[in-house]
Amino acid sequence: MLANVNHPTRLVPIAFMAAIAIGTALLMLPLSHEGPGYAPFLTALFTATSAVCVTGLIVVDTPVYWSTFGQVVILVLFQIGGFGIMAAATLLGLLAGRGFRLKDRLRTQVERSFFEMVDARSVLRLILLVTVTVEATLALALTLRLHFSYGQDWAVAAWHGLFHAVSAFNNAGFSTYSDSLIGFQNDWLFLMPIMLAIVFSSLGFPVIHELQTRATTDHGRPWTLHTKITLLGTAIFLVVGFVTVLAVEWNNPDTLGPMGLGGKLLNSAFQSVTTRTTGFNALDIGAFNDETLAVTYLLMFVGGGSAGTAGGIKITTFFVLAIVVWSEARGEREAALFGRRISTSIERQALSVVLLSLALISLGTMVILSVTEYPLVDVLFETISAFATVGLSTGITGQLPPVAELVLIVLMLIGRVGTITIATALALGRGRSALHYPEERPIVG
Amino acid sequence: MLANVNHPTRLVPIAFMAAIAIGTALLMLPLSHEGPGYAPFLTALFTATSAVCVTGLIVVDTPVYWSTFGQVVILVLFQIGGFGIMAAATLLGLLAGRGFRLKDRLRTQVERSFFEMVDARSVLRLILLVTVTVEATLALALTLRLHFSYGQDWAVAAWHGLFHAVSAFNNAGFSTYSDSLIGFQNDWLFLMPIMLAIVFSSLGFPVIHELQTRATTDHGRPWTLHTKITLLGTAIFLVVGFVTVLAVEWNNPDTLGPMGLGGKLLNSAFQSVTTRTTGFNALDIGAFNDETLAVTYLLMFVGGGSAGTAGGIKITTFFVLAIVVWSEARGEREAALFGRRISTSIERQALSVVLLSLALISLGTMVILSVTEYPLVDVLFETISAFATVGLSTGITGQLPPVAELVLIVLMLIGRVGTITIATALALGRGRSALHYPEERPIVG
Ligand SMILES: [K+]
Ligand SMILES: [K+]
Repeated sequence: MLANVNHPTRLVPIAFMAAIAIGTALLMLPLSHEGPGYAPFLTALFTATSAVCVTGLIVVDTPVYWSTFGQVVILVLFQIGGFGIMAAATLLGLLAGRGFRLKDRLRTQVERSFFEMVDARSVLRLILLVTVTVEATLALALTLRLHFSYGQDWAVAAWHGLFHAVSAFNNAGFSTYSDSLIGFQNDWLFLMPIMLAIVFSSLGFPVIHELQTRATTDHGRPWTLHTKITLLGTAIFLVVGFVTVLAVEWNNPDTLGPMGLGGKLLNSAFQSVTTRTTGFNALDIGAFNDETLAVTYLLMFVGGGSAGTAGGIKITTFFVLAIVVWSEARGEREAALFGRRISTSIERQALSVVLLSLALISLGTMVILSVTEYPLVDVLFETISAFATVGLSTGITGQLPPVAELVLIVLMLIGRVGTITIATALALGRGRSALHYPEERPIVG
Repeated sequence: MLANVNHPTRLVPIAFMAAIAIGTALLMLPLSHEGPGYAPFLTALFTATSAVCVTGLIVVDTPVYWSTFGQVVILVLFQIGGFGIMAAATLLGLLAGRGFRLKDRLRTQVERSFFEMVDARSVLRLILLVTVTVEATLALALTLRLHFSYGQDWAVAAWHGLFHAVSAFNNAGFSTYSDSLIGFQNDWLFLMPIMLAIVFSSLGFPVIHELQTRATTDHGRPWTLHTKITLLGTAIFLVVGFVTVLAVEWNNPDTLGPMGLGGKLLNSAFQSVTTRTTGFNALDIGAFNDETLAVTYLLMFVGGGSAGTAGGIKITTFFVLAIVVWSEARGEREAALFGRRISTSIERQALSVVLLSLALISLGTMVILSVTEYPLVDVLFETISAFATVGLSTGITGQLPPVAELVLIVLMLIGRVGTITIATALALGRGRSALHYPEERPIVG
């Protein structure tokens, strides 16, 4: 299917697989394992894949199973993975013009793509700058809180602070606590900085770049459609997640039930923020009502902004298709938003990403269903979480048989590098077939 | 959303609702109820909706709960419903040209739509002719079999034969037997004629019309893309269903397990044919493995051919989107099959039908999950079956609370008249918005 993929796009999956291989080897060292013995191959492979793909699904308890060295390896892996995917997505986008063609340019009145406005070096510099700034600020905030309010030694506080800061910014979702952030579920000052970092980083680099450009220079330039959709879509999904958790879990004795109003609001907000791609949890996912899980499917599947550390099909993909459907339902001849028409080839890319993702998740779910006895509701949660590199789980990951673990590994890898590789391949491969067949209109619906 | 729906498209839902209202009233008569008393409102409403929408979901056991008069009412309702939907879809298609516009016509080299080649009277005549011919032939075959092999009186045999013939041709799925066709699971001579009638009728009227035209006159005309996709797609889905049931259920002690090779082959074939839209069952659906149920979801969701008695999103809708994805993945600039390009507006219609259907099924599933304790796997089966007017069930329909029954009623109605109404409304409303916005290309994936 992708026989005509050009070399640069092949590089990304190869680089990711190399990082996973090295990570697996490091995690198999006795040094990485807490106590005697060492991690078996599949456990190390799963953990390395989950880290490099910034997923955060775990088959063993991070702080209990892995030594401090092992945890540092995991930290480095998700930092490399997060930076790698952000840089790769952006650079590949630059290289391919992501669908930009001269012909299109001439044909349409206005066509602006982020990737036409930046050069490679300035991109890498800005990614690095943003990463270091946000992570350092967040690490500082968390460290201060852990030292002064939880009485941790400076060294311990700094380690936990740094780990969660890097994990948050890269949307990795790994934690040095066995119960993720449940222990902080009533701590505004710990959760709020994390939420801010997550929302910011999950916008994706093109949006961050545009925000930065407007803040420093060039105030008068109109917003790109990409940024407008991403910002508006993020706001919509944050509200949907917040309202769902708040309304459905309000009385659930195992989640929001025992909390006061402040705790209910804080935890609904945090869950909404983290569900879309990061995968921390301050509530017990396994105790959620089915309706919350169902909305969570959607939030995880959609994910965050393009060309960032967020997973899923991406917010713009979802809204491009939603706009098409909306325009169709209104009988309009073209799909448009904010006075801009959406390119037909972008519509097709969005459609392809969604349908291929659905097919892959369905296939993975089928395989896991057939080798386990877990109910569909949990298995589907696991496969969407893996594919969209979220890392939340209803709690079954650690009990899955090897075949199911392999399925999740494949889903994590394809979910992470697949969409970006395919999208770029599409853009690069485009335009070769210039045949024009006569049109026909089969009856649909 | 559909405020701009033209009058003719409003007529279809109104006619269906009127038929359901009359059916409900008739079924509430004490005469319709077997034994003393009469059916409560919700039971009558559910049954009438299921019959008029040719769904076949039942909350009470047809032969036990309803008198012969009641069963005749049901028979008449699904005959009216089946004929009505076939005629309405075809006539509305004629009226709206289903997306046909002069501009398009001038722009493209070849554009052929079924709806441009026929006139209303000849359509109604042919629908009637095909209906009577197929139903009479099938009724005769079944009656003979029931009389000579099962020793039924001529009158009894004729009644059962007629009921199942009309039910099969209209893809209604109602049966005069409590266990549907499980009692005939080893009877080739009973199941084969039913299978043939189902496959034929579920092609949809435009395809049947084209087959008839080619058989009688006009042998040289090239096949329309619609017919090619429908025939090829039908074959593909029949094979997928057959292979899945055969492979997954081979050893299941409650389904194919105890059967010989002949029985296994016959019942896999029958299940594959009936699952796509009719809803008879000769096996116990509740005993199926989860993998079979998962494939069944897809088969039910896709359904049969457009503008016929089949339900679902329709085969062409599925394949139009599949072709778009396939073309994208190969880096081609346009989606084409059999040397014909697929119209962009048709792609958008197909996308809209699928996404709106998914949204509706998800919503219905959520509501039912929240008012019952049934597992997702069963509830999802029920909602897809209702929306795609299939009528299969894992066995929970009769135990659902009133709210869940209402959800299924709404799903059946929208699933039956919704897609056709929306598709026509789209086609009629099209072309008003002539604004051309500048194009923009948000990054997706
Ligand atoms: K994650
Ligand atoms: K049916």
